[in-house]
Amino acid sequence: MASVLIREAKEGDCGNILRLIRELAEYEKLSDQVKISEEALISAALRADGFGENPFYHCLVAEILPAPGEPQGPCVVGYGLYYFIYSTWKGRNIYLEDIYVKPEYRGHGIGSKIIKKVAEVALDKGCSQFRLSVLDWNKRAMDLYKALGAQDLTEAEGWHSFRFEGEAMRELAGK
Amino acid sequence: MASVLIREAKEGDCGNILRLIRELAEYEKLSDQVKISEEALISAALRADGFGENPFYHCLVAEILPAPGEPQGPCVVGYGLYYFIYSTWKGRNIYLEDIYVKPEYRGHGIGSKIIKKVAEVALDKGCSQFRLSVLDWNKRAMDLYKALGAQDLTEAEGWHSFRFEGEAMRELAGK
Repeated sequence: MASVLIREAKEGDCGNILRLIRELAEYEKLSDQVKISEEALISAALRADGFGENPFYHCLVAEILPAPGEPQGPCVVGYGLYYFIYSTWKGRNIYLEDIYVKPEYRGHGIGSKIIKKVAEVALDKGCSQFRLSVLDWNKRAMDLYKALGAQDLTEAEGWHSFRFEGEAMRELAGK
Repeated sequence: MASVLIREAKEGDCGNILRLIRELAEYEKLSDQVKISEEALISAALRADGFGENPFYHCLVAEILPAPGEPQGPCVVGYGLYYFIYSTWKGRNIYLEDIYVKPEYRGHGIGSKIIKKVAEVALDKGCSQFRLSVLDWNKRAMDLYKALGAQDLTEAEGWHSFRFEGEAMRELAGK
């Protein structure tokens, strides 16, 4: 395979990123949580939220660079979307919200390269750790993260993720 | 009990918040993850990170207001510390990193009041959901969140939390 570059996303990458986000939702079998009619809105939000003055998130893209003489241009085949979180004991840390590599490009270490770049960014920004979440049936991803040195906090300490949303949240807020 | 006020924390609350953070770490049986010698550093970081121009986190405190004629002043007995996260499909959301009420003040609905205030802030800020994590042995907290309408995503969808830190992270980053 030609060489792979992991670089910061530019606003012009949003179209490619959105396509990969949709693929990831399908891969995670969670795409029913998203209406296709919302895609235009999501696309506009992705641009505004990631590329303004105080971005809400940051994004890395994995780009395949063509070999010299090959006619096609570079091609985005994966991404990692992260933001900064805060631990009362550890200060500012990174949360890797999404990581995805197109199926036909797996097995070439692109996921590991994205993870390594996130570790680099985290250290550069003074963070002592970074976190991510994985679905328990995704053994391939779990094995990769463990092989790279991650700890499964749900297994080791018993952490469960909870979410409030929709009607329950509005009722709570009395709205 | 006298009345309870849930309000935004001020910088002057940091001393009280730090004491509650320590209590929470002990309650979660995770206080071994924190060296007592780090407390002065953490105290300075809490002030700088939460009360500057672009705060990394926000904090609510639960304050007991004395009844008229009672000699003592108001007393901070709980807190909720949150920050903004980002979902590619849902946009900006809130993550409630810590929620804690001193043991002797539990059973009076103060935890619920903090949760309700977080729901209110979330809706005011245009968020469609908020998340938090709970340790699986903390049945009391889990039951409360479920009773208030939260969904256990680890149970329902199989999400596991992973963390990279320390030597593993430095090796990944090649540093």
